[in-house]
Amino acid sequence: MCGVFGIHGHDEAANIAYLGMHSLQHRGQESAGLVAADEKDGKLRRHVAMGLVSDAFNRDVLAKLPGRTAIGHIRYSTAGTSELRNAQPFVFEYAGGSLAIAHNGNLVNANELRAELEAQGSIFQTSSDTEVIVHLMAKAKEPDVIGKLNAALRRVRGAYSLILLTNNEQMIGVRDPNGFRPLVIGRLKDAFVLSSETCSFDLIEAEFIREVDPGEIVMIEKGGMTSHRIMAPVEAPTFCVFEHVYFARPDTFVNGKSVYRNREKMGIAMAKEAPVEGDVVIPVPDSGVPAAIGYSKESGIPFELGLIRSHYVGRTFIEPQQSIRHFGVRLKLNPVATILRGKRVIVLDDSIVRGTTSRKIVKMVRDAGAREVHMRISSPPTQWPCYYGIDTPTRRELIASSHTVDEIARYITADSLAYLSLDAMIRAVRGPLAPAAKGESPGYCHACFSGDYPIAFAPPANGKRQMRLVGV
Amino acid sequence: MCGVFGIHGHDEAANIAYLGMHSLQHRGQESAGLVAADEKDGKLRRHVAMGLVSDAFNRDVLAKLPGRTAIGHIRYSTAGTSELRNAQPFVFEYAGGSLAIAHNGNLVNANELRAELEAQGSIFQTSSDTEVIVHLMAKAKEPDVIGKLNAALRRVRGAYSLILLTNNEQMIGVRDPNGFRPLVIGRLKDAFVLSSETCSFDLIEAEFIREVDPGEIVMIEKGGMTSHRIMAPVEAPTFCVFEHVYFARPDTFVNGKSVYRNREKMGIAMAKEAPVEGDVVIPVPDSGVPAAIGYSKESGIPFELGLIRSHYVGRTFIEPQQSIRHFGVRLKLNPVATILRGKRVIVLDDSIVRGTTSRKIVKMVRDAGAREVHMRISSPPTQWPCYYGIDTPTRRELIASSHTVDEIARYITADSLAYLSLDAMIRAVRGPLAPAAKGESPGYCHACFSGDYPIAFAPPANGKRQMRLVGV
Amino acid sequence: MCGVFGIHGHDEAANIAYLGMHSLQHRGQESAGLVAADEKDGKLRRHVAMGLVSDAFNRDVLAKLPGRTAIGHIRYSTAGTSELRNAQPFVFEYAGGSLAIAHNGNLVNANELRAELEAQGSIFQTSSDTEVIVHLMAKAKEPDVIGKLNAALRRVRGAYSLILLTNNEQMIGVRDPNGFRPLVIGRLKDAFVLSSETCSFDLIEAEFIREVDPGEIVMIEKGGMTSHRIMAPVEAPTFCVFEHVYFARPDTFVNGKSVYRNREKMGIAMAKEAPVEGDVVIPVPDSGVPAAIGYSKESGIPFELGLIRSHYVGRTFIEPQQSIRHFGVRLKLNPVATILRGKRVIVLDDSIVRGTTSRKIVKMVRDAGAREVHMRISSPPTQWPCYYGIDTPTRRELIASSHTVDEIARYITADSLAYLSLDAMIRAVRGPLAPAAKGESPGYCHACFSGDYPIAFAPPANGKRQMRLVGV
Amino acid sequence: MCGVFGIHGHDEAANIAYLGMHSLQHRGQESAGLVAADEKDGKLRRHVAMGLVSDAFNRDVLAKLPGRTAIGHIRYSTAGTSELRNAQPFVFEYAGGSLAIAHNGNLVNANELRAELEAQGSIFQTSSDTEVIVHLMAKAKEPDVIGKLNAALRRVRGAYSLILLTNNEQMIGVRDPNGFRPLVIGRLKDAFVLSSETCSFDLIEAEFIREVDPGEIVMIEKGGMTSHRIMAPVEAPTFCVFEHVYFARPDTFVNGKSVYRNREKMGIAMAKEAPVEGDVVIPVPDSGVPAAIGYSKESGIPFELGLIRSHYVGRTFIEPQQSIRHFGVRLKLNPVATILRGKRVIVLDDSIVRGTTSRKIVKMVRDAGAREVHMRISSPPTQWPCYYGIDTPTRRELIASSHTVDEIARYITADSLAYLSLDAMIRAVRGPLAPAAKGESPGYCHACFSGDYPIAFAPPANGKRQMRLVGV
Repeated sequence: MCGVFGIHGHDEAANIAYLGMHSLQHRGQESAGLVAADEKDGKLRRHVAMGLVSDAFNRDVLAKLPGRTAIGHIRYSTAGTSELRNAQPFVFEYAGGSLAIAHNGNLVNANELRAELEAQGSIFQTSSDTEVIVHLMAKAKEPDVIGKLNAALRRVRGAYSLILLTNNEQMIGVRDPNGFRPLVIGRLKDAFVLSSETCSFDLIEAEFIREVDPGEIVMIEKGGMTSHRIMAPVEAPTFCVFEHVYFARPDTFVNGKSVYRNREKMGIAMAKEAPVEGDVVIPVPDSGVPAAIGYSKESGIPFELGLIRSHYVGRTFIEPQQSIRHFGVRLKLNPVATILRGKRVIVLDDSIVRGTTSRKIVKMVRDAGAREVHMRISSPPTQWPCYYGIDTPTRRELIASSHTVDEIARYITADSLAYLSLDAMIRAVRGPLAPAAKGESPGYCHACFSGDYPIAFAPPANGKRQMRLVGV
Repeated sequence: MCGVFGIHGHDEAANIAYLGMHSLQHRGQESAGLVAADEKDGKLRRHVAMGLVSDAFNRDVLAKLPGRTAIGHIRYSTAGTSELRNAQPFVFEYAGGSLAIAHNGNLVNANELRAELEAQGSIFQTSSDTEVIVHLMAKAKEPDVIGKLNAALRRVRGAYSLILLTNNEQMIGVRDPNGFRPLVIGRLKDAFVLSSETCSFDLIEAEFIREVDPGEIVMIEKGGMTSHRIMAPVEAPTFCVFEHVYFARPDTFVNGKSVYRNREKMGIAMAKEAPVEGDVVIPVPDSGVPAAIGYSKESGIPFELGLIRSHYVGRTFIEPQQSIRHFGVRLKLNPVATILRGKRVIVLDDSIVRGTTSRKIVKMVRDAGAREVHMRISSPPTQWPCYYGIDTPTRRELIASSHTVDEIARYITADSLAYLSLDAMIRAVRGPLAPAAKGESPGYCHACFSGDYPIAFAPPANGKRQMRLVGV
Repeated sequence: MCGVFGIHGHDEAANIAYLGMHSLQHRGQESAGLVAADEKDGKLRRHVAMGLVSDAFNRDVLAKLPGRTAIGHIRYSTAGTSELRNAQPFVFEYAGGSLAIAHNGNLVNANELRAELEAQGSIFQTSSDTEVIVHLMAKAKEPDVIGKLNAALRRVRGAYSLILLTNNEQMIGVRDPNGFRPLVIGRLKDAFVLSSETCSFDLIEAEFIREVDPGEIVMIEKGGMTSHRIMAPVEAPTFCVFEHVYFARPDTFVNGKSVYRNREKMGIAMAKEAPVEGDVVIPVPDSGVPAAIGYSKESGIPFELGLIRSHYVGRTFIEPQQSIRHFGVRLKLNPVATILRGKRVIVLDDSIVRGTTSRKIVKMVRDAGAREVHMRISSPPTQWPCYYGIDTPTRRELIASSHTVDEIARYITADSLAYLSLDAMIRAVRGPLAPAAKGESPGYCHACFSGDYPIAFAPPANGKRQMRLVGV
Repeated sequence: MCGVFGIHGHDEAANIAYLGMHSLQHRGQESAGLVAADEKDGKLRRHVAMGLVSDAFNRDVLAKLPGRTAIGHIRYSTAGTSELRNAQPFVFEYAGGSLAIAHNGNLVNANELRAELEAQGSIFQTSSDTEVIVHLMAKAKEPDVIGKLNAALRRVRGAYSLILLTNNEQMIGVRDPNGFRPLVIGRLKDAFVLSSETCSFDLIEAEFIREVDPGEIVMIEKGGMTSHRIMAPVEAPTFCVFEHVYFARPDTFVNGKSVYRNREKMGIAMAKEAPVEGDVVIPVPDSGVPAAIGYSKESGIPFELGLIRSHYVGRTFIEPQQSIRHFGVRLKLNPVATILRGKRVIVLDDSIVRGTTSRKIVKMVRDAGAREVHMRISSPPTQWPCYYGIDTPTRRELIASSHTVDEIARYITADSLAYLSLDAMIRAVRGPLAPAAKGESPGYCHACFSGDYPIAFAPPANGKRQMRLVGV
């Protein structure tokens, strides 16, 4: 998971991009990068660093990134490939000049394209699928950048919300035909802004204009914006439902829907689908808060903030040798005993991945005095890995892919466990007024819950991933 | 405001102290320091650094702090005196050996004692009042450390929760006769633990034993603890009520009362004292959450998380020259438009200091579409500076010391504003069963609201501070 | 100018490479980089950083570079293109696997090859000419790495001493047919070592075996070494004479000749060609020391260390606004007044580039009390830029390209100035026994003095460089 | 060993002090510190850091040290007590205001004074003897700073060249009655400058005025300088002869004598006292160079730079596990085989401490091919520890305190070894014209060679040091 941001035509482009990246920090904490196009010398200047935006940039660094157009990228921490060379935006030089690219998503045919390109003599510098796009652009015979981009996108399949920047201060936004990942357009006075989420616009006081449509290329240059279609088959939009469940910030709107309100609706639906007697409803903060409020409203059971989240959790806390039970969870969350003691506690969370964290939370809540602990998950069981940009583990590690709900309940030691049904979740996200007919907009990708993958995934040679392909 | 922590008799003393300091991080983010006593060579080793615990310490640093006893200190950021030389714990060498000291609180007669000591030839290395205590100890003729400490404490007046550490692995906890600041005792297997707050014990899985009593000295050595009285007039306890209102973590217990529950009670009382018609109750996170829940419960108006707090706010964010409205607040908080649009919004906060932040919040909520904005403050107007360890501004800067509630409401542009009454706040904190008779335990210091200062403050020569002394 | 080092088949390859790079630090202080091939997982791991080897690497970094084969690179500081992305060794992935490359030298047809490759769709990530070689290798149809390398080298012209490393732990050394830059082979027990200079072998206690011949490729794999010829026209060797004059360390041997002794011989020749009455001979340290000793021996005028060189000169010293005369030189060198006062001083230096430093030195020596200052340069006037890897300025900036020796003497305010003749310099380097017949081995490149460029240079489009092509 | 520097009355005081400290870098590399007095607010601001001046300071740090008067300190690396809290200058606050102090030297009665002060209730923050002086000043009843200083200096014994700075911009230079350590006065336009060595004046273009006399206090304030006597018994000056032998920079003058020339004279004397047949004379650079030149001149045996010193040796080089012979020495020095092969080599060094380095050098020279290696030391055997500020090891570690010259020669594996006699060394330093009568000025302290300590040293309680007291 990642975040992308761009601004075109602003006197303080790098500073604004830096704030925009900060507003997307929840989408990734591994690395942060920024490329600015200097109209004075036609150069792209780049700074990338591991870690948070606030650590990666300071006044001196920003001062060395002059120009009125800049794009930024936030990268999620994924085990194993965490290296500076994979930090985006990438900058390449090719026959067309210099080009920067920032990518949110994941290509499903990157491995085969890379093999093909290498066979033709291409050399690669990163392990990222994004580099494939630039190679395809460099090899394209089309004269202009939109033509080259289209030639490349014709070949790639998968999820991509892209922002590109040329050394001619052209900023380009692209969203794949399925529209898996969000990408929105805003205006800040005369400047154009692109971002993964609308919450960026709130911070910098930009005005939300509209989403980049699935399959659309927007070219922003010389103060104006033009729209183009990706020259590839139109797909039924399949926006990632997990953005609503967990990933996006609650104050963001996606597809015109409030993430906060959708989460609350999931909580309401949960209370209808899986009621349970209880004394108090508590969320696993922060993402579980709106669902817990919804559950409380529907059930009439009081909402309390029974778990306090620390604001100071860094990434490398040192654990004593004489180990502490639930250390990792405890550093991040602490139960409020007063709220829990002697109570039947309903805990709302957004999902269960491996089950280990949920198990620690249930135990911690019970240790704090809860009489009963009922876990309610505001989405269906996560059974399938995501191939479109969310860093889920393999099937083997997903507890729900090999265990029943009862088994999971026992594993996490909850008195009861219930997941929201797929239908109810989709209804909560789509809204009551939208017709539910298949293929109609807005459709959603729910492959992680259902295994219905909208686009086939070509497995790498080493076959590390497995998948069931349905209805593609 | 600061936090203190100590552990005696643990194989990983520095590591545990580091975690304890992390659990107190909300009490100060300016500097963090740790001193360990090595029983092998009788040496005190010290590491202090500006910033957060997680930045100040790493595995290498902790490895260089061997020993089974360690104390730590967290310092609050206060304008002007932010320097590494003021970072605690301090370590001094004197005739009695080496001594480390960590202090939460503020002495009211430090200036006159310092002048007296300097006249006798003492030299000072910090601008901290804490250094006075050590000078007085060094000059004391008593043979043992308890005697020296008592000789010093006889002279000082004010607020002090202290943890001291000698090079003989004696750990000493002290709380002033008024008991302004908290200090609690716990056990972790065979080890003794001291901390500003009980939430530290949850993290390290220590067991809460009891509070250090006002006027008590606890000496922990050779695996045992003995209790001593400060040789000074007994005072009626006057615990800082502001710890309940704002400072302590909600999952902490002070004087046996849950901070979370007390805040909720303040919200309930608020709803009774100052009801208003509204559509939604929202807190200013995080400290306002329990009060907002209480207000919602009592009023029946739905609770929502209408302001999202960022988890990634560093201390030195760079503002663009082309300034952004409410920049500082906006970096930290973002309104959820869905919740607020067209609504009559009741905002719960714990206090108003200068009024500038509240003004920005009200405007931000209204910009997000709120029809009406009603501000409810779960404490009385803050009119008087604190001389006992909380870093409040001078009277001139406290908006409530020179403006009526109506004037403040107009300034912050709220449709209505109400504060909780002093009586209701004290009742919420003390609980319904405790008799309210004056002077009875537990009494509270509420000087910042009432101007009733339990201990007189000697103003410094330059007369920068002013105060009204009442009934002492 | 740069330095390259490699070791194959040693348990502590990265540590040894780090020491080898340290021994080549005089060849470049801009950046340092190291790539290790891990035989356990077939991966190349890379660490590069700006600055000195000792700052760029520490124990933790070295520990993260496992494997029995490693190559390193030291890069010279050149104005303008000083960026981390240009720090070598580079690592690329292509159809043949992973490949690291470290390059000392400069290709003269890189611009035209790059344009040709970009037209075919190649993308570039650095502004380095070295990247061209890898692109050519990636496009080669030959099945093995030697074949691919030869296919690439057939196309490139210029100066290159290369060390390559594959993910199959093959270490490859290459020296261009002219042999402009040095490259030597050593053994450290069972391990093979490659380095720019023999002084590396002294530090790590390796044994010198032989030079890589001009036009030779040595492939080191599985503990053995095989020799191959570059499939390109054989050239008469034209080793860079400036390595002897200035660049190489005095304790290094090049072409079997001691650099120290050759510099001493230049000083002896200087004393014969340009004698002058004087009281003392002093060097500009450090490179001028052997020549000054030679001059002293031949002339009988006493040698003294009249200029002291500081050991602590960093790269970013802060100059006061109220400026200091000769600040830059003065930070580095200080005259010993006792030696100079009232004396006729003969100053030995290796070359004059712009003349500004020499002018400061002459003035400083005179300010210290010298009665006369006679400058003797142990090489001919530097009139032509180097296109083969030494970072000389353009002709316009080279004072000797537009001024006579008399004019230069006046500019630098010396009482007299003499350069060594080209013949005498070559004789000093080649030795008395070697026949001086033109074109015979060992021949030398002296283009910077004579303008006789052994290989034509293709100017870039922007035409920033100018050159006279002679006899190629 | 340390260096001190101060400047009074200059618009860029901190910048000039920073350069002055850089010029004294050879006197210590452990820590660097600077205190500036701001005349605008009467504050002393301090910055200290471990390491070199160039690393400890940058433009931002210097900008935060405003004021027209500043003092600096360079601290030598001594095992065990290397801590930031011991980095000077110290700043203290006492009844007289704020005071900064920088100290070169060592007090011999610091332990007893410290014990006395602690018994009176003083507290200490460092393990430095310097802190004693400030405590004594703070306790003095005299009204002005010169009076307080004199009161303190009446009590202390030992070696001290001090620079003090008050918050009233008074800069004070002090040199103990024996004048062990150097301290010189210069002028830079209207500003006064104090420094440990005259080489500082060369760098900043200040004019040398005179030395601070032994037993003199110079008070520089309001643009003028006044001279005062330390109110203590006048001593016969005993300037440290080791400053000439090793410590001072060769381009410095001490007591009006050139350090370079004195070292050269020692080499000449050496050639007379201990001639040996040889083919080449080489120095151990850098301190041995002038003595080797002198030896060469007197003996007629050619001087060569047979050992090359690396300019890039940091303090924490990582040694491979598979160890390298003479690793530490080899990193710093490399033999030039051409010079040494088959030769009878005479090696000039300034002193032998433990013998281990000399042994490595002899072996390295022999490994490089030398037929014979004759070691000549330009000072007598170092048999006694220094109590006056030079960081020599204890007697037990000094090889010459328990071994004869023959034994040492065998240990270091030299074919012959000779030391300069005490008389010859003193003659070289004092000059032929000065009468050698005992007690006459200038006298020298040569206790490290002779055991004749000018001032008695009071051993600490733990009795770690031993000494023979002679004729005091």
